[in-house]
Amino acid sequence: MSSTPSQLVQAWLDSFSAAIDGGDFAAAAAGFGDDSYWRDLISFAWNIKTAEGPAAIHSMLEATMPGAKPSHWKLQGEGSEAGGVTEGWFTFETATGRGRGQLRIIGGKVWTLLTTLQELKGFEEARGETRPRGVEHGPHAGRKSWAEARAEEERTLGFDKQPYVLIIGGGQGGIALGARLKKLNVPAIIIEKNERPGDSWRNRYKSLCLHDPVWYDHLPYLPFPDNWPVFAPKDKIGDWLEMYTKVMELNYWASTVCKQARWNDQAGEWEVTVEHKGESVVLRPKQLVFATGMSAVPSMPSYAGQEAFSGEQMHSSRFSTADAYRGKRALVVGSNNSAHDICAAMWESGVDVTMVQRSSTHVARSDSLMDLALGSLYSEQALKNGVTTDTADLIFASLPYKALPALQVPVYQQMAERDKDFYVRLEKAGFLLDMGEDGSGLFVKYLRRGSGYYIDVGASELVANGSVKLKTGAIERVTEDGLLMADGSHLKADMIVWATGYGSMNGWVAQMIDQDTADRVGKCWGLGSGTKKDPGPWEGELRNMWKPTQVQNLWMHGGNLHQSRHYSLCLALQLKARMEGIPTPVYALAPVHHMA
Amino acid sequence: MSSTPSQLVQAWLDSFSAAIDGGDFAAAAAGFGDDSYWRDLISFAWNIKTAEGPAAIHSMLEATMPGAKPSHWKLQGEGSEAGGVTEGWFTFETATGRGRGQLRIIGGKVWTLLTTLQELKGFEEARGETRPRGVEHGPHAGRKSWAEARAEEERTLGFDKQPYVLIIGGGQGGIALGARLKKLNVPAIIIEKNERPGDSWRNRYKSLCLHDPVWYDHLPYLPFPDNWPVFAPKDKIGDWLEMYTKVMELNYWASTVCKQARWNDQAGEWEVTVEHKGESVVLRPKQLVFATGMSAVPSMPSYAGQEAFSGEQMHSSRFSTADAYRGKRALVVGSNNSAHDICAAMWESGVDVTMVQRSSTHVARSDSLMDLALGSLYSEQALKNGVTTDTADLIFASLPYKALPALQVPVYQQMAERDKDFYVRLEKAGFLLDMGEDGSGLFVKYLRRGSGYYIDVGASELVANGSVKLKTGAIERVTEDGLLMADGSHLKADMIVWATGYGSMNGWVAQMIDQDTADRVGKCWGLGSGTKKDPGPWEGELRNMWKPTQVQNLWMHGGNLHQSRHYSLCLALQLKARMEGIPTPVYALAPVHHMA
Repeated sequence: MSSTPSQLVQAWLDSFSAAIDGGDFAAAAAGFGDDSYWRDLISFAWNIKTAEGPAAIHSMLEATMPGAKPSHWKLQGEGSEAGGVTEGWFTFETATGRGRGQLRIIGGKVWTLLTTLQELKGFEEARGETRPRGVEHGPHAGRKSWAEARAEEERTLGFDKQPYVLIIGGGQGGIALGARLKKLNVPAIIIEKNERPGDSWRNRYKSLCLHDPVWYDHLPYLPFPDNWPVFAPKDKIGDWLEMYTKVMELNYWASTVCKQARWNDQAGEWEVTVEHKGESVVLRPKQLVFATGMSAVPSMPSYAGQEAFSGEQMHSSRFSTADAYRGKRALVVGSNNSAHDICAAMWESGVDVTMVQRSSTHVARSDSLMDLALGSLYSEQALKNGVTTDTADLIFASLPYKALPALQVPVYQQMAERDKDFYVRLEKAGFLLDMGEDGSGLFVKYLRRGSGYYIDVGASELVANGSVKLKTGAIERVTEDGLLMADGSHLKADMIVWATGYGSMNGWVAQMIDQDTADRVGKCWGLGSGTKKDPGPWEGELRNMWKPTQVQNLWMHGGNLHQSRHYSLCLALQLKARMEGIPTPVYALAPVHHMA
Repeated sequence: MSSTPSQLVQAWLDSFSAAIDGGDFAAAAAGFGDDSYWRDLISFAWNIKTAEGPAAIHSMLEATMPGAKPSHWKLQGEGSEAGGVTEGWFTFETATGRGRGQLRIIGGKVWTLLTTLQELKGFEEARGETRPRGVEHGPHAGRKSWAEARAEEERTLGFDKQPYVLIIGGGQGGIALGARLKKLNVPAIIIEKNERPGDSWRNRYKSLCLHDPVWYDHLPYLPFPDNWPVFAPKDKIGDWLEMYTKVMELNYWASTVCKQARWNDQAGEWEVTVEHKGESVVLRPKQLVFATGMSAVPSMPSYAGQEAFSGEQMHSSRFSTADAYRGKRALVVGSNNSAHDICAAMWESGVDVTMVQRSSTHVARSDSLMDLALGSLYSEQALKNGVTTDTADLIFASLPYKALPALQVPVYQQMAERDKDFYVRLEKAGFLLDMGEDGSGLFVKYLRRGSGYYIDVGASELVANGSVKLKTGAIERVTEDGLLMADGSHLKADMIVWATGYGSMNGWVAQMIDQDTADRVGKCWGLGSGTKKDPGPWEGELRNMWKPTQVQNLWMHGGNLHQSRHYSLCLALQLKARMEGIPTPVYALAPVHHMA
C-alpha cells in the first residue's frame, strides 16, 4: 500500500462512517479483523464495554449506532506506523456529544478501536476561552459577592436544596469526581467520615508514600507542579487533596457518616440518613455514588484462637506506627504492598518483625516498573515525546483487557532478566515469588484482584538480608502469644498486624443499604479472568466500576489516582446526562455472577 | 542581506561574544545602534539595570564582563523578522549562572538587548527530571517521615535555627518570593499580621475582583487551572494563596507583627522583634525583605476640620462594606481604582454616593485593555501562539522603560478611538479624563506613580448615567457634616471614604526600623520620568524594587501578581547567591534622589 498512515486511518474512518450512515453494520463490522476489539467509554454504549471480535462488534454497532447518529469522524494529528501496526487518533460527534478515539490497524483491518465521550453538547465545561468571567462587570444592585454566593451554597445545599448526586467517601475518588461534577454544574455533596480531606491518606502508617510516580497521579484540572516529588509522602498528598477540595469549591461534608440509605421508588430518589456535625440529616439525592475505596472493606481472616491473643492485633488499614513496640516482637501476616511497607516501618522503628507469607507474591522493583511498564506513558520522557497525561490515559484505555496479559508478559520477562540477581536473593531468603499466573505481572494482577503484589521501594532488601524475618506457610491457629503454623512451628509475638487485604466494595452497600441490594450489585472489580480471586466468566471490563450497575441510580467509583482521574470523567458525564434528561440507553448492562 | 533572521541573530551574538572574549568592549558596544538599550536582570550587573545608548552600554560591559566571563551565546528556537526588526531569543552562561535573553536588531545593530539570570550553577532548582524522589527508597533505621521533618522545620526555624531571609508581609509578593526561596533551599520565614494567608485580599471591600486577567496573574510553579475565572473574586484569590502557602510548604507565621528591626553590624545580621502568637520573638536573619505591598502605607490628606466630621470616615484600605449605610449619603474622595470600586459597591448597596474627583483620571475599559494592551502576551490567543507565561514575562521585561511610553501611545490612541462614545459620555457627565501626561496610558502611569487610573469594570457607567454622583474640584475643608468645596458648594455626608492612595514603601522602613534608614533607602517605585508624582532625575528602572538598595541586606519586593511572579526569581537568586557566598558585585547601585 502506498498510502501514508494518516491516509490509511482517515480512509478506514471514512468507510466505517459510510457503512454506519447507510445502516450497513455488517459492512462496518467487516472493517475489523478476526482478532479485534472495540472498547467504548460511554460514547455509544452508555456503558464501559469492550466488544470482542467482529460478531460482538456487529451487535454493538447495530444496537448503539442508530440512536447515537455519529458523524464527523476526523483524524486528529498524524497517523503513525510501527511494526506493521498503523495507529491514529480521531475525533467524532454523536447526536448528544463529542468524542475522541484511537485505532490500530493491522493489514487493513482494525485490531483495536477505542471510542470515548469527552463532552456533552450544550453542556461543555467552561475552560480556556469559555472560562467564567469571575466578576460580572457592570453595576448590579444587590449583587452577591463570590464569597456570599459560595457561603449560601454551603448553607443551603443538603438542607433547602437537595444535591443531584451524593458521593459517599471523600478520598481521591470522591474528590476527583466531585471536581468533575462541579465543573459540569451538577449539584453534589461529598460525605467523608474523617475530619479533613486527605485524612484517608494521613491516617495510614507514617512511612507510607505513593507507590506510583507523580506523572501517573495527577488529579483533573490541576496537575502537580513540576517540582512535586516522584513518590509523594502520604501527608503531602493529604494536604494536596485538602487544598484541592477547597479551591475546586467542593461541597465536602467532613466528619460525616452515612448511617442508612434506601431507595424511595415513589419519589425516585435516595433517602440517605447521615450524621453531620453531630446531627442527623436526611439527604435526598437522585444518584448515589460509593467512592468508599476499592481497598476499604478490611478483610480479616478467621483463625481459631484469634480472640485468645493477649497482645495487640489489628488489620493493616488501622496500623499507624510501631514506635511503641521498639525491641518487641511483631508478626505481619501477608506479603503484599501493605505487609512489606509495615514490616519496613517496624524494622526502622527497631521492632523485631517477622513477615508471615502464606502464598506467593509478585514483586516488581519500583525503578524497573517505572522504566519498563510506565515510562513510555507516564514520565518526563513521555512528556518530552508529547504524551500528555490525557493522551497517556487514552492510550492506556485503548488496550483491551483481553489482549493486555499477552502484551504484558514480555515486559515482565524483561524485568525478570534485568532484576535477576534481586529475585535470586529474595528466593534464597525463602520468599515465594510469582509473576502472575500467566506471567503478566503487576498491573494485570491489580485489575484481576487488586492485590497479590509488592512494588519494591526497599523492603525486599530487608527480607533478603534477614533484617525482616520471613516465615512461609499456612497458619494453623492463633495462640495466646503468637501464631501456630501448620508445620508445627510457633511464632511468638507481642503484636500481630493482619495485612490480609480487602473485600469487594459492595460490602459497603451491604453495610449502608442492605444485603439484598449489595447482592444485586454483586462483586466489584476484577475481570472474570478465571485466575485466583477473579473467578469467571470473562467480563471484559472491571465489574461495576464507573458504569451502570444492576441497581438503578447506584454507582461505584474507586481505584488508584490514575483511575480516579480518568474514569471520573466517564462517571461524571453519565450523571450529567441523566440530570439533563439526555437519553442514555445502556447497552449490555453486565449481569451479576458473584455476590462478593 | 540574504541571511535568515536566525543567522542574523546568531551572527550578532558571535561577534558580540568574540569582542567580549577579546576584551574589546568598544567593539562589543559598536554592535549597538545610537538609540539602543541593554537591560540586565542581575546576570551581569547583579542589579536590575538598563544601560541606555552605546556609551552607557560600553561602561556596563567594561565593568561587568571581565568578572562574569560569559560564554555559550546560543540562539534559542528561530529568529523572526517583522517591520524591519529582527528578533531572537538566546541562552548564555556566566561563570556562576545560566541565563536567557532576547534581542532586537534594526539595520544590523541592536536596538534592545535583554539579559536575565535564570539559575545559579550548582544550585539549580529540582524540577522535572531532577525533581525530588519524595520517599527515599530503601531501609533507613530511625527514618523521619515527611510530616515529621516538616513539623520539625516549623518547630525549630526561628527558634533553634535562624532563617537566612525574613520576609515582612505575607501577601502575594511575600508568598511568591517564599516559594522561590523554598525551592532554592534558602531558609526563610514570612511574617504576616493577618490570621490567614490571603487575608490581605479577603479583608478588602466585598465586591473587589482582580482588575487584571488570569493569564497575567499566575503564581510561580503552580498556574491557575484553565477553568479559573478571568477576573478572580478577592476571596477566591485569598483561598488560592492560602492553599499555595500550604502546598509549597512555606514557613508562614500568621498573626505576627513586626515591632522593631535593627541591623546588628557586629553580628552582620538583623535583629527583628516580632509578636508571634502573643509572644515576643527575636529573629536574626541575614537578609530582610519588605514585601509589605507597594500600595500599603495609606496616604491620608490633611484638610482643615477633618477631626470635626461627626460621621464615620476611613481610608479606602479599611473600607469593607457599606451595607449599613443603605439610604444614607456617602462621599468617596478620589477617582482611581479603589474610588470607583467603592462607589459601585455603595450604589449596589443602595447608598446615595458621590465621587469627589480632585484631578483628572485615566480610564481604560477592561475589555479594551485586555484586547489592545495585554492580549498579545497574556490571553488564550497568546497561549495558542506559543507565548507561555515565562516567555510573555520576558518579552514584557525586554521593553526598556525609556522606550515604553512611545510604544504605548498608539495603543491608547487606538483605545480612544475604539471607546470614543464611552469617553464622550463620561466627559458629558463632567468626569475629568486623561490618557497620561504624554498619552502613554495605564501601564506607564502604574510604573511612574502606581496610581492615576481606573480599569473600568462597570463603575464608569454609573458615573456616566448619574447613579453615582460626581463632584469635581478642590476641597476647601471638612465640616461637621460633609465637605466644603473650593467653589463654595457644600456636600453633605454621613460617611466619607478617603480613596486617596498610598505613600512610598519606605514608609514601612521608617515605622519598623527608623526614619534614617528609611531616608537612606529613599523613595520606592517610579522611574524618575519628571511627570506628576514621579520627579526626576531619570532612573531607568523602578526605584529600589527587587534589587540592592543603599541599605545593605535590605530589600523591597512588591507589585501586582505579574511582578510578584516574575521579579521574585530575580530577588530569590540574589539572596541565594549571597547565602552561598557567590560573588555578587553590584554595578551602578542607584543613588537616592528622593526621601518619599
